[in-house]
Amino acid sequence: MAGMPSRELQLTPESAQILALLRDGAPRTRAQLAELSGLARSTVASRLESLAASGLVAPAGGGPSSGGRPPGYLAFQPAARILLAIDLGATHGVVALTDLAGAVLELESAGLDIADGPVAVLDWAMDAADRLCLRSGRPVTDLVGVGIGLPGPVEHSTGLPTNPPIMPGWDRFDVPAYIGARFPVPILVDNDVNLLALGEHATVWKHEDDLLFVKVATGIGAGIISGGALQRGAQGSAGDLGHVRVPFSSRTPQHGDADADLEALASGPGIARALSAAGVPASSSRDVVELALAGEPHAADVIRQAGRDLGEVLATTVNILNPSVIVIGGSIARAGEHLIAGVREVVYGQSTPLATRHLTITESRAGETGGVIGAATMLIQRLLDP
Amino acid sequence: MAGMPSRELQLTPESAQILALLRDGAPRTRAQLAELSGLARSTVASRLESLAASGLVAPAGGGPSSGGRPPGYLAFQPAARILLAIDLGATHGVVALTDLAGAVLELESAGLDIADGPVAVLDWAMDAADRLCLRSGRPVTDLVGVGIGLPGPVEHSTGLPTNPPIMPGWDRFDVPAYIGARFPVPILVDNDVNLLALGEHATVWKHEDDLLFVKVATGIGAGIISGGALQRGAQGSAGDLGHVRVPFSSRTPQHGDADADLEALASGPGIARALSAAGVPASSSRDVVELALAGEPHAADVIRQAGRDLGEVLATTVNILNPSVIVIGGSIARAGEHLIAGVREVVYGQSTPLATRHLTITESRAGETGGVIGAATMLIQRLLDP
Repeated sequence: MAGMPSRELQLTPESAQILALLRDGAPRTRAQLAELSGLARSTVASRLESLAASGLVAPAGGGPSSGGRPPGYLAFQPAARILLAIDLGATHGVVALTDLAGAVLELESAGLDIADGPVAVLDWAMDAADRLCLRSGRPVTDLVGVGIGLPGPVEHSTGLPTNPPIMPGWDRFDVPAYIGARFPVPILVDNDVNLLALGEHATVWKHEDDLLFVKVATGIGAGIISGGALQRGAQGSAGDLGHVRVPFSSRTPQHGDADADLEALASGPGIARALSAAGVPASSSRDVVELALAGEPHAADVIRQAGRDLGEVLATTVNILNPSVIVIGGSIARAGEHLIAGVREVVYGQSTPLATRHLTITESRAGETGGVIGAATMLIQRLLDP
Repeated sequence: MAGMPSRELQLTPESAQILALLRDGAPRTRAQLAELSGLARSTVASRLESLAASGLVAPAGGGPSSGGRPPGYLAFQPAARILLAIDLGATHGVVALTDLAGAVLELESAGLDIADGPVAVLDWAMDAADRLCLRSGRPVTDLVGVGIGLPGPVEHSTGLPTNPPIMPGWDRFDVPAYIGARFPVPILVDNDVNLLALGEHATVWKHEDDLLFVKVATGIGAGIISGGALQRGAQGSAGDLGHVRVPFSSRTPQHGDADADLEALASGPGIARALSAAGVPASSSRDVVELALAGEPHAADVIRQAGRDLGEVLATTVNILNPSVIVIGGSIARAGEHLIAGVREVVYGQSTPLATRHLTITESRAGETGGVIGAATMLIQRLLDP
């Protein structure tokens, strides 16, 4: 299928502006669209014509499912094209086809080792995409964009991983070029935590403009949504909570009396080290989660303390960003309430009342699909937003 | 002049879109505007007509200053209307008239006491505005917006000060309604640090999308620009560095062995307390600045330590926000290089290499007009941006 022309989306800003009025899913008449946009009916009509030609808009009435809706209504057709969303973790990958509203059509997930390198891992993801297309009955030429999340720092403008610590062989590998040789469509790459933030925002917290998504697993990082938009910072490294130094005077003595990076204290491996030191052998995030779910009391204690250490950094983050929601995700967050209990204890005790009065601290709810929905959201913003 | 109708700006989003193509100051032809906007020439022509009717756009050729430019060029007319920009500090106020490009036309500044309350202080500012209109020969009816900065927390959506610690009598005072009774135009209120960030960004760092402005004076606060936009957070309290807790193990022992808010350590009054404890009596930011400028060695030491304490908080902030520029302003920053030297020492030593490789830490350059230019910028974004 390589090299086949895709039905690329070429939206003018003007058409995108009209389409935006239909993307909430509600069908509208030409007259309503003219009123909502403030444009002349003739202008609306010509823009709708080009949207209809590309299949993005179609009449909503007339069909058996129209429930007696009078004719003249037009509706966004999110199924007119498909998106490929890929969420790659250190040991697990999810590949999904979504429609243009970010709804997952088909999904495949599998264990993998990111250290197998970009060719092996991306080939698996693209083979999965072909399988999903077959399963869904959609030709690959319906694909108009690929979004990918990687478990490390990514230079978002070029899509190149930059010094990813747990991804040997990936440094500066041209992911968009490699994918683009097989799927010649726009390709966007970002780090997985940013996409988890977008996914959680799109599915659970649509109406909150200021959200912080924190992932606690092998590493610790955050995706920041401020003013309704994902903030990546000047070099794309915004949200790097894992390398914030936590002074020893803020902590219980179990980690000694030197300052340490948050990641050394509160990540899966950091917690495993503390558990081993307490006489409960553990060496990975998975061990930590299993011990906690099995009711090992030391595990509960150590995870709660990790939550407090994370809380120290989040208390400062709350004063700086004033979010309305902090979502805690990642494998350690799935090991019961201990982590989030420690976070809440410190943040509510320490941040200013103005910043915490309306602050929700909660667990991730987007689940396994959060990353791919975030990848689709990133693509939809790029391809459809006016 | 109260109650006189103003020549209110009523820009449709469509006209604003065309105007945006001229706001860089370069004159352009109708054909160029059609090409840049992707719109039909007839559409451009009708939008230009409404912009010309309101005086915002006019022919650029033909005059003696056109330098032989061929006819047919159109240019933005920033002087078509005026803005009133008010920057109120604890002890000092600046009132300015600007044009629609944010250029200061007339300016008046004076000592004041914010604790005199809103009626006295705002009356002074509005009287100053009348004097400036007279001086500039512009009728008050040319005024299309008022922007005000206050030295305390402000609920930006309503313009109400909320529990401002150094502003007795101002809590929940309806600033927009009071100003609006005399100047019936859109009125926007924000805290002074946000406006200083906007002003510094507009005048010195236009091409940087991620900037942090830190004010160190009677209090400590920051204005955050991320992704090119000012970020206020969910309740408008983003940038509250002053109440971040600095653990004692990060500091030199001069402040004892308890954790403390950054403001208690590194603000003007905090530095004055540390100086007094070292046997050099001081009680205010002004004393601190005078002692430092007079070459008192204890003052240099204590201010440098305040810079290190501020640096502890900024190092974390850099990891979270990944800005490309940190601008340090406020009275203590004007007491020589000591403060910024302490900040640089800690931030460059402690934040991650990726976040600091291209990070500039520098002094404010916008000067006394930074706040009013920021107030004008806030208004221009609201009134003219598409």
